[in-house]
Amino acid sequence: MVKKTGGALFSTLKIDPSSGTPLYRQLEVKIRQIILNGQLAAETRMPATRQLASDLGISRLTVKNVYEQLIAEGFLWAKQGSGTYVARIQNNDFHAQTFARKQGKVPLAQRLSARAAWIGRSKATTRLDRVRAFRPGIPALDLFPRRAWADAYSTVLRANNDDYLGYGPSSGLEDLKQAIVEHVLDHRGIECLSSQVTITSGAQQAFSLVALALLEPEDIVWMEDPGHIAIRDSMRLLGIDVRSVPIDAEGFCLDHAVRRYPQSRVMFTTPSHQHPLGVVMSLNRRLELLDYANQSGSWVVEDDYDSEFHYTERALPALQALDSDGRVLYVGSFSKSLFPALRLGYLICPPDLARSFAAAQTLLSQNVSLLQQKALANFMLDGSFNAHIRKMRLAYRQRRDRLIECLERYASDLFELAPCHAGMHLIAWLKAPQLSDSEVAECIWAVGIDCLPVSIFCDKERLRPGLLFGFACAAEIHIERNVIVLSEAIRDNLQV
Amino acid sequence: MVKKTGGALFSTLKIDPSSGTPLYRQLEVKIRQIILNGQLAAETRMPATRQLASDLGISRLTVKNVYEQLIAEGFLWAKQGSGTYVARIQNNDFHAQTFARKQGKVPLAQRLSARAAWIGRSKATTRLDRVRAFRPGIPALDLFPRRAWADAYSTVLRANNDDYLGYGPSSGLEDLKQAIVEHVLDHRGIECLSSQVTITSGAQQAFSLVALALLEPEDIVWMEDPGHIAIRDSMRLLGIDVRSVPIDAEGFCLDHAVRRYPQSRVMFTTPSHQHPLGVVMSLNRRLELLDYANQSGSWVVEDDYDSEFHYTERALPALQALDSDGRVLYVGSFSKSLFPALRLGYLICPPDLARSFAAAQTLLSQNVSLLQQKALANFMLDGSFNAHIRKMRLAYRQRRDRLIECLERYASDLFELAPCHAGMHLIAWLKAPQLSDSEVAECIWAVGIDCLPVSIFCDKERLRPGLLFGFACAAEIHIERNVIVLSEAIRDNLQV
Repeated sequence: MVKKTGGALFSTLKIDPSSGTPLYRQLEVKIRQIILNGQLAAETRMPATRQLASDLGISRLTVKNVYEQLIAEGFLWAKQGSGTYVARIQNNDFHAQTFARKQGKVPLAQRLSARAAWIGRSKATTRLDRVRAFRPGIPALDLFPRRAWADAYSTVLRANNDDYLGYGPSSGLEDLKQAIVEHVLDHRGIECLSSQVTITSGAQQAFSLVALALLEPEDIVWMEDPGHIAIRDSMRLLGIDVRSVPIDAEGFCLDHAVRRYPQSRVMFTTPSHQHPLGVVMSLNRRLELLDYANQSGSWVVEDDYDSEFHYTERALPALQALDSDGRVLYVGSFSKSLFPALRLGYLICPPDLARSFAAAQTLLSQNVSLLQQKALANFMLDGSFNAHIRKMRLAYRQRRDRLIECLERYASDLFELAPCHAGMHLIAWLKAPQLSDSEVAECIWAVGIDCLPVSIFCDKERLRPGLLFGFACAAEIHIERNVIVLSEAIRDNLQV
Repeated sequence: MVKKTGGALFSTLKIDPSSGTPLYRQLEVKIRQIILNGQLAAETRMPATRQLASDLGISRLTVKNVYEQLIAEGFLWAKQGSGTYVARIQNNDFHAQTFARKQGKVPLAQRLSARAAWIGRSKATTRLDRVRAFRPGIPALDLFPRRAWADAYSTVLRANNDDYLGYGPSSGLEDLKQAIVEHVLDHRGIECLSSQVTITSGAQQAFSLVALALLEPEDIVWMEDPGHIAIRDSMRLLGIDVRSVPIDAEGFCLDHAVRRYPQSRVMFTTPSHQHPLGVVMSLNRRLELLDYANQSGSWVVEDDYDSEFHYTERALPALQALDSDGRVLYVGSFSKSLFPALRLGYLICPPDLARSFAAAQTLLSQNVSLLQQKALANFMLDGSFNAHIRKMRLAYRQRRDRLIECLERYASDLFELAPCHAGMHLIAWLKAPQLSDSEVAECIWAVGIDCLPVSIFCDKERLRPGLLFGFACAAEIHIERNVIVLSEAIRDNLQV
């Protein structure tokens, strides 16, 4: 049975010569759609190429090429001397039916859509795409030596070495690992071998690696509360049981966790500078933590996210430097010491886990950009990295001082400032305890200024309302105006 | 009780003035270790700074600074007018005991060490760090326009826009997503919106995202066998139940899977060019697959890893272009069209999953280098990307032809070549069926030449022995010599 095609169907096709897409491609896509949608039954005769070309105002050769392509694909078939027909595609009627049926509702499984909604609500995705004063966690992008970095990158590219364009070793480039080994020894008192280092695309990937290498769903981890949002969310997403541990004046309340929770497999901590409260973990608490890890066979993740920046005395050495039993996984990042768009960080693991982490990194993402790894290795080895950190330490201290000065001058009715001796943000507690810090942050965002409410870092803890103001990314000359604008916005819009 | 310190303990400290590490840092580390190891009990009096400085041959000021630092840290304490003492650290005796106890065996949990060993054995990590002829999956690094790329990167860096140094949007840079939308429409017949695109650090990260967004442990996925090693390993590592589906002349044997396995949640496929066998999935098989996905509410992952390179006719459009029900997740990569060290790829998901994937990317790794994303967007928009692909298509065809010619001339006793109309490698089946292809690959590696055995891609399937020879990365002038060397190595070392 040969069906005549309805010429009307084809004359309504929309082919747009002004679009960037080639005409043959547009026509192919349309004809395929028509066949798949069941609008052209099997054995229907196609219009002659000359006819269709004239109807659509395109060249006959284009139509001919499209027919040939669709014949090659099995959508059409050519009968010698008789023209071109729609092929009998197995199930194509059925496919057309199911297509129609599914126009209604896509039957996404209940639990998957629940999960999708849950991921969609994660606070970790909040406004990462724009940089405004006083975004916490963003370094001084205005002071970054762009030309020096561009040169470092170009130098690597122009080196006549194909290896730098390839995948490279899963765990990272040896040159960069060596540079990191020296850096953590000098700055953090950590003695390790380059084989213990895995290069990651930042701290967050290091945490994912920890989960991939050491954890299984339903394993229990202990995590600071308030604490790192993305760690908490990503662990829960992986089915890991996250128990929240409060913070006291000495840091992570180990006792609280030991008394109440089942044994942990991994404890996520920020000993140098608690995130976000800024508490430095006491030596005794550090030793207790290591001891617990040792006795229970669990691991401590030390997230040393902004340890390069301290303003009053030398920083305490890393927790890892106290660990003689291979229980600490140390996580560092260049997002804060250089800039986030680099996407480079590292994890230092105990020697017996090194091979697992290298392989886990291959399975997770096949490592990070080798060109940027090599450029960074050179940047560290020639002293540019240390020089940059020293400069930033001075700049951030000045920005911190200026921010404190302005907040005290213009907003002392609104905020009570927490002490700030390190890091890239300060915490301003709201004097009006009835305010929601999220609402205050929204109100500030509305006038073009960024900050983060303390409450988004909390899981079970309910702290008084407060804001994190990042001073590192705020150019000094704009600080005063920004503080005036944000404090007026709060007074004008909220019941303070 | 005040204990006198044994001067001997300190005089044996090794301080190395020629090491790159500052003296104060070396001394601090040693003293901390001694205290933590329990070699100095609480209340022990420390040597006078002058004495220790003289014993160690370093300046008194250095020793003084170290003591002050250790006092600040809580390891030591100063008694006015009486000297410096080891602090009573809570649990320090206990800590010293556990340290001694653990010198024996670290009690790693059984299942974790089993997993670590399992990850360590993953074949996905094989020799990624060196680029040699005939490594499969590596493009022509020798032909890459390095200067043009360096310029593209520098241009972005020098643009006066802080946003390019920041984190950027989780799901990737809008400019790059737009360029990808145009590319997949022109080259693969895919119509999508930029909101459906998530930028990843390559295909492997896209697969991890699929697992994170759509799968839970014990979910069942169907996967081609032979097939992509790293997908299979990483899914199993996440506790997902991977069922292996054989390949026939039309591709993925859907019937086999439907008859034998419980319903899948996700099917991993390579419709354009089966990895590694090279079969093109037939139109009927494609429609069956989509239909099954649609009826069962499962998803098809289309890994379109090397679709830019086809040598005889235009490529079939992507499976995604046939999908009207939102069941296909399309994965593309720039590792093969440009170079692996970029670490850039993308995932195109159905519109209803877009937000989940963006958020999953934030939780997994906070996205990929914004600088390289912007450089690539410019490279695509100004036509450099398409020009490069066209050039590579010609170059790879020449390299393929040369490789086939040389294998036929010098190694026709050893190999039977599979047809090769697309992609970056060809399969040479070994004529001697008793040989292990892994052993043959080792034998070739030993003479400085790379290739991959077919068997490492197999899960349950047992195929005849064969080798994948990647021709894309092999400069034409070296192909003949390499073929002669490798075929002689096989004849000399193995019973052929």
